[in-house]
Amino acid sequence: MPPTIGVFDSGFGGLTVLRSLIERLPRARFAFLGDTARLPYGSKSRRTIARYAAQSARFLVHEQGADFLVIACNTASALALDAIKEAVPVPVLGVIEPGAAAARAASRTGDVLVIATEATVHSQAYTAACSAHGLRALEKACPLLVPLVEEGWIDHPVTEEVIDIYLNELRSQAAGAGMNPDTLVLGCTHYPLLRPFIERSVRPGVNVIDSAEATAQAAVALLNGRANEGGSAAFTKTEIHCFATDSVDKFERLGSRFLGRPVGPVQLIDLGG
Amino acid sequence: MPPTIGVFDSGFGGLTVLRSLIERLPRARFAFLGDTARLPYGSKSRRTIARYAAQSARFLVHEQGADFLVIACNTASALALDAIKEAVPVPVLGVIEPGAAAARAASRTGDVLVIATEATVHSQAYTAACSAHGLRALEKACPLLVPLVEEGWIDHPVTEEVIDIYLNELRSQAAGAGMNPDTLVLGCTHYPLLRPFIERSVRPGVNVIDSAEATAQAAVALLNGRANEGGSAAFTKTEIHCFATDSVDKFERLGSRFLGRPVGPVQLIDLGG
Repeated sequence: MPPTIGVFDSGFGGLTVLRSLIERLPRARFAFLGDTARLPYGSKSRRTIARYAAQSARFLVHEQGADFLVIACNTASALALDAIKEAVPVPVLGVIEPGAAAARAASRTGDVLVIATEATVHSQAYTAACSAHGLRALEKACPLLVPLVEEGWIDHPVTEEVIDIYLNELRSQAAGAGMNPDTLVLGCTHYPLLRPFIERSVRPGVNVIDSAEATAQAAVALLNGRANEGGSAAFTKTEIHCFATDSVDKFERLGSRFLGRPVGPVQLIDLGG
Repeated sequence: MPPTIGVFDSGFGGLTVLRSLIERLPRARFAFLGDTARLPYGSKSRRTIARYAAQSARFLVHEQGADFLVIACNTASALALDAIKEAVPVPVLGVIEPGAAAARAASRTGDVLVIATEATVHSQAYTAACSAHGLRALEKACPLLVPLVEEGWIDHPVTEEVIDIYLNELRSQAAGAGMNPDTLVLGCTHYPLLRPFIERSVRPGVNVIDSAEATAQAAVALLNGRANEGGSAAFTKTEIHCFATDSVDKFERLGSRFLGRPVGPVQLIDLGG
């Protein structure tokens, strides 16, 4: 039996991680849960996020039979990874460590910029993970980017302007700190949809790291043996089951933009609260 | 005894309503609850919003002794007013009906524009309330305005541009529908902070209706006898107690911008979920 891979996000931004996983594991079963009733996690406290994330993880493991969990949400990875690991008896992979490892592989100067939500930045999880890899990181919260993506202004001039404002501020801060950054980590699963504008805004030669891709690669490495077995066994194609705690319509409507294919029917579930 | 007035919002935008209430009832006791752990309500479903709002209303009435409730949240007023009225045994006033009544008083053409969150617009509550007053309303969701206010970009050129884009789209739709609107209702408690840009963007002679102000006036009219009694009795000054379900720091930091004075210490409470 190939493993069932549980993928969790506060919303549907984590579908960018699911998309990268599917590209690398086309013959597997995926259960994706978006805790849309309680999003955004990005502006909430560690305690609240840990409680919500643990409930969601238990649903994927106990109700959906996930035997591997990918936390496709930077905020939950930053603030609740330990709480999730305590809540469920299966391996759990977050997006922060793979993002930091990919930055380490890409950077030559050792100075890295990170853009993310308010709560992720406040947690300094990327700074800690980068530091463990010998990198110096400077983080900046960009709270307008998620709403701009969800408004559908992915190629709108206002979005380009907002990205330029945020990245200019970040570059000024880096220069003020005597840093010479050559790598920018997209520390939010919504940001890959803005990659064209972000790449246009960074200086030539700066690496843009998508933590969704980095995480999918790390998951495949961990799952490798079991996934190969499974690929030749039960599943001959990708099986995707999507769940949300609210706003199924919005999930179905916007989700395909993140997943790169129709998300199919999304099942509404109640985690209480 | 003057009444304790319970004021409820999903976040702290409703502090603009509290501000208007305090200006009109300087000698009263106010208990304000921001359900910040579960905001924004604007993107959630009717069922979820009704459940959250009823829990919050019960807290204000049963734990804080509120004997009058003002729902200082357009989304909860639009989607959960009946659920709240069923949940508590005190009079409940929402922001929609006062906003529609103020639009009726201001409009000569009978055509009214409304800007609000996605869920408020989707509910068509303003359209129904305006229609009951003999007005024709056209509503538009402006999902970027709340994040722009919360980012603090209240006088930022990007915010001015976004407001112009939204209002131009709305005017085009109104012209296409053969309407001649002379009144714009701010159907979200965050929007009064953007009033200078909004007034600059509308045509001269168009009335801008702040539903926070309209609601405070309606509350005072309803409370009039009791408030006058109370004013000369127990309270010689305004007493404000603020509660939040999360992010007390952010509430304390940003709240004063909405309230027009320091919000003081905010008490963290747990409504479960």
